[in-house]
Formats: sequence, C-alpha cells, structure tokens
Amino acid sequence: MAKNEGDVRARLQRTALELFRERGYDQTTAAEIATRAGVTERTFFRHFPDKREVLFDGEAKLRAALAASIADAPAGLGPLDTLFQAFRSVQPALEGNRPFSKPRHDVISNTPALHERELAKMAALADALAAALKARGVADLQAVLAARTGMAAFVHATVSWLNDPGLGLGERLDLAHRELKALLTGGDY
Amino acid sequence: MAKNEGDVRARLQRTALELFRERGYDQTTAAEIATRAGVTERTFFRHFPDKREVLFDGEAKLRAALAASIADAPAGLGPLDTLFQAFRSVQPALEGNRPFSKPRHDVISNTPALHERELAKMAALADALAAALKARGVADLQAVLAARTGMAAFVHATVSWLNDPGLGLGERLDLAHRELKALLTGGDY
Repeated sequence: MAKNEGDVRARLQRTALELFRERGYDQTTAAEIATRAGVTERTFFRHFPDKREVLFDGEAKLRAALAASIADAPAGLGPLDTLFQAFRSVQPALEGNRPFSKPRHDVISNTPALHERELAKMAALADALAAALKARGVADLQAVLAARTGMAAFVHATVSWLNDPGLGLGERLDLAHRELKALLTGGDY
Repeated sequence: MAKNEGDVRARLQRTALELFRERGYDQTTAAEIATRAGVTERTFFRHFPDKREVLFDGEAKLRAALAASIADAPAGLGPLDTLFQAFRSVQPALEGNRPFSKPRHDVISNTPALHERELAKMAALADALAAALKARGVADLQAVLAARTGMAAFVHATVSWLNDPGLGLGERLDLAHRELKALLTGGDY
C-alpha cells in the first residue's frame, strides 16, 4: 500500500508506462492502469484527467523552474544566455528523472497522437519562456525568437541525451549552445 | 459545375472553410462539405482522406519548393541565410494564397486538435529543411538547429503577417532575419 498521495501518483505513472510498453498506448485503459497499480479507477481519475496526462505530469513543474531561473538571471545577460542558464538549472532534476523519461520518450515517439501532444506542450513551454524574457525587458520579437530557438536547442539536447547517454546532458547543452552561436557565422561549412 | 478536378478540389477547400467558420470544425462533417460544394461524399474522399486534411493540402508543395530552393542555393552561403533565401522564394505563392490562409489560420488557432496537427506538420517541415541542409554538407547538429530556428522565425513572420497585414510578408521576414542575427551575436539588450 502506498504511504501517501505522492506515492500513489508516482506508482500510477510507473504502472502506466509499463502497460503502454507491454500492450501499446491505444490498447491500455485507465481502468487497467488502476487495477495493476492496486487502486480504484476513481483514484486514478482523482490524480489524472485521462491516461494521456499521466505522461505529461512534469511539464508544469519544469515550466515553473525555468521561469523562476529566467526571472532571477543577472541583469544584462543576453536572452539566449539567460535561457541556457535556465536549462542548466534544471539539469539535475532532469538527470534524476531519466529512469522515467527515457521509456516515456520511447512511448511518445511511437504514438503519433502523443507526439502531437508533446509538440503542443513544448510550444506552450516556449510561450512561457518568451513571456519570462519579456518580463525582463526583452523586446517582443526578440523574446519570441529567442524562446523558440532556445527550446529547439533544449529539446534536441535532451532527446539526444535520452537516446544516447554516451554524452552527458550538460555536454549536450553546451554543444547546442555553441552550435547555435556558430550558425550565423556560417560555421566551417 | 467545376471544369476539372483542380476546380473541385479548390471548391471543396473553400466550402470546408466556410462551414468550419459558420458551425465550428467539430460540428461539420465531410458529407456536409460535399453537399454544399455540390459533389458526392465519394468525390470528397477521392480528394481528401478526411475533413482535417482539407486544411493541410498545401504543405507538400511548400516543402518541395523550400527543399528545391535550398538545394539550388550558392555554395558557401551559411545555413540560416540559405533558409531565409528559401523562405523568400515562396513569398509570392504565400501572398497569392492569403485569401485562403487567413481564415484557415483562424480556424486552426481556435481548434486545439487542428493546432496540434499544425505543429506536427511544421515539425515535419523543419525535419525536411534539416535534411536539405545536410545534403549540402552542413553538419548534423548545425543543420537541425538551423532548420528549427529558421522554421520558428518563418512561422512567426507568416503568422504576424496574417494577423496584421500592415507590414508585408517580405518585411516580416527581413525583420525576423535581422532579429535572429542580433540574438545569436548577443543583441543590443
């Protein structure tokens, strides 16, 4: 038996991932997740509105952490550097979450409806980063472009790291940051 | 009566947009679109797999035009400049299509399922641009970051122009290109 609500929630997430991988996402119901996790369907729906949201639970927390880091960044730090500092501030949390996020990423990649949902969440996250930059006085267009560019680099770095842990997340972020700066100079190309 | 298949196709698209705006996307069926356009439901499905795809018809053509422009760009042009040259090459086609793309954009913005679909199409388009850059010899990571960054700027420029035609599409693209350069080189901020 779970000791508290947080335990139940985490167990529902682990169980959902197990079932999605065993049977496929479409073939798994919320009731089946609840049964295997040893709780009622009613308990499942007290924690999540539907089986899809079980996979997107961490997004609000990630958004809040990134926004807080952007708000706290030293005055005068450029928009892209501000974003990469924020990405680095969530690195330990992402690393700790890898045992969950790797299978999660695999399920999402193999399920088009989930992949579209993930893209929508990432777009919303980019909007939140743009708002946080604007609150620091970055002009509208520059804030939006910085946020979308930064998110593209962040997503690419984390996905590369999930698919190939040979390079650490910090190194992946550094690499993306450097390559982004090299884009305009034309690089070595 | 339509003179040919292309006319029927275009009329189905116009009619679908009319109905989506009048009744909402969810409340409109493929059969209703066909009826109002004066064709059978069977004819509708000969042109489109479902009512959603009526709105995403132009994407393959846009992708082909952008890829061709990238392939033809002068050797030695940097990745971002190559992309913006490609965006400018499709500007006349986009301007000609504005009477369709403005109501289309409004319907998509107001319908979450369509918005997610649009994001997925844009992500696929970014992948195609990355592939076209790699074919020119741009290194993998740089090609992916350039494509995603460029797409973000392209989408922002076209959406701004659709929502506020006070500035032309060419000016919007120039502005985004300039801001992106400022961003990556550190900006005035």
